[in-house]
Amino acid sequence: MRNINENTITAAVLDRMAGCEDPRLKEVMSALVRHMHDFAREVKLTEAEWAAGIEFLTATGQKCDGQRQEFILLSDTLGLSMLTVAMNHSKSAQATEATVFGPFHVPGAPRLPLGGDISGGAAGEPLFVDATVRGRDGEPVADAEVDVWEADAEGFYDVQRPALDRPQGRAVLRTDARGRLWFRGVMPVAYPIPTDGPVGAMLRATRRHPWRPAHVHFMIRAPGYQTLITHVFRAGDEYLDSDAVFGVRSSLIGNFASHVAGSAPDGSLQPGPFHTLGFDFVLEPAE
Amino acid sequence: MRNINENTITAAVLDRMAGCEDPRLKEVMSALVRHMHDFAREVKLTEAEWAAGIEFLTATGQKCDGQRQEFILLSDTLGLSMLTVAMNHSKSAQATEATVFGPFHVPGAPRLPLGGDISGGAAGEPLFVDATVRGRDGEPVADAEVDVWEADAEGFYDVQRPALDRPQGRAVLRTDARGRLWFRGVMPVAYPIPTDGPVGAMLRATRRHPWRPAHVHFMIRAPGYQTLITHVFRAGDEYLDSDAVFGVRSSLIGNFASHVAGSAPDGSLQPGPFHTLGFDFVLEPAE
Ligand SMILES: [Fe+2]
Ligand SMILES: [Fe+2]
Repeated sequence: MRNINENTITAAVLDRMAGCEDPRLKEVMSALVRHMHDFAREVKLTEAEWAAGIEFLTATGQKCDGQRQEFILLSDTLGLSMLTVAMNHSKSAQATEATVFGPFHVPGAPRLPLGGDISGGAAGEPLFVDATVRGRDGEPVADAEVDVWEADAEGFYDVQRPALDRPQGRAVLRTDARGRLWFRGVMPVAYPIPTDGPVGAMLRATRRHPWRPAHVHFMIRAPGYQTLITHVFRAGDEYLDSDAVFGVRSSLIGNFASHVAGSAPDGSLQPGPFHTLGFDFVLEPAE
Repeated sequence: MRNINENTITAAVLDRMAGCEDPRLKEVMSALVRHMHDFAREVKLTEAEWAAGIEFLTATGQKCDGQRQEFILLSDTLGLSMLTVAMNHSKSAQATEATVFGPFHVPGAPRLPLGGDISGGAAGEPLFVDATVRGRDGEPVADAEVDVWEADAEGFYDVQRPALDRPQGRAVLRTDARGRLWFRGVMPVAYPIPTDGPVGAMLRATRRHPWRPAHVHFMIRAPGYQTLITHVFRAGDEYLDSDAVFGVRSSLIGNFASHVAGSAPDGSLQPGPFHTLGFDFVLEPAE
């Protein structure tokens, strides 16, 4: 202990956790220490690089507030979020795939009746969504709680607009007795993740773009089923093959249809372009 | 890219950094991603554990301020700091070993003449230090800049006392023409690293104590030599074999001598207990 070196220190740290009574915590912390030390040894981390890392992590934490979660952005852009989602949702052939949660969900969004407008006045071309929520055997899932959130026509979520005093582009709805879900929103556009913080600096330094292909977020909860957190992506988006957070799944590319003007699914007459999306969500049974 | 899974995502993230023009940054970031993904896969990280990790890192960043560096504490307690120091200071047989920098150094400490009192009024039994700074061939290092910092008798650094409006227990001195360095301070005591933040919670959860054996910090800079950042530890301290930050080296255990009362090295008559320390620092030549 008084003469540990760069190779023996790892065992010394693990040994210090010998008394930890939570076997899972001990397992996770031990693996974290081993892999972190292996990383530092492999690159022979310099003291200046170590100091830059301390500074980066500190700035990342300090960028976080009630509206901003820079560590989730970091995890997303380094692929850790999608890796964690993928490991925890082994997909049966039928069920809808999960993807990253992202940093823009807000609990307690306004509850809307079916057919309601989730945009809350956000700018964008109208989008009419008509979806179903079913179980693996095709049974409709009635009264499922569906959280929906999306960015506006400029690619911003409401929480990214400090002057805004009410929710926009988010709502909680419930499926009807046949598992149907329909609402109005705005057509999603591709957007860059926020780049005014440490994660943006990391992307620039490594020559990565910050763009995500256009998508609408869904979180669907129903008793007896696993919660599904996913997106529906817009087909044809130029960033489908280079999503900054690695969230695209081909099964999640949605069937958006564009219309120049005319009669919308809600019976309204649209004077300009509008869009429709049909999508069928399939939930896994609870374990 | 549209169908990456838990195994292929690592290559996808590395591929995204293909355009990075800084080869060292690319190497370090790629290794970081590989080892982080390997960690998550090895423990099959759950989504709840991922969320707890995001929360822990966020709280760690938010605990930092001008006086507190919680990420350095985290690195120290997980052995990453000592590992980095050890890798970057391959010790020749003669040179003084380096150890962790720690979170309590403050740049711009008061400059004191040799023989000065660094305590600034901090409580503690008087300590008289008489040291030399030499090169590997025994040559004295004249005019070396020596930063010294230490905790007070209650185990607190000045920066841990919010009510204090001036430095205590820290100073910058310079060696004389013969490489000698002498000053007065207070006898160091064992102290717990701060446990009121996320790192304290981690130590409690893994059943680790937060104590460090008593020590005085030194940073010695001189042209033509490598900067030495080290401690001198107090022999006999009960925490020498379980330093919370893995910083002890047997070569750094100092020769502290205790005296009941009487004539001190500076010629003063001490009415109560005082201590003396002799230590010879040996610097490596600059590379
Ligand atoms: Fe999004
Ligand atoms: Fe210390």
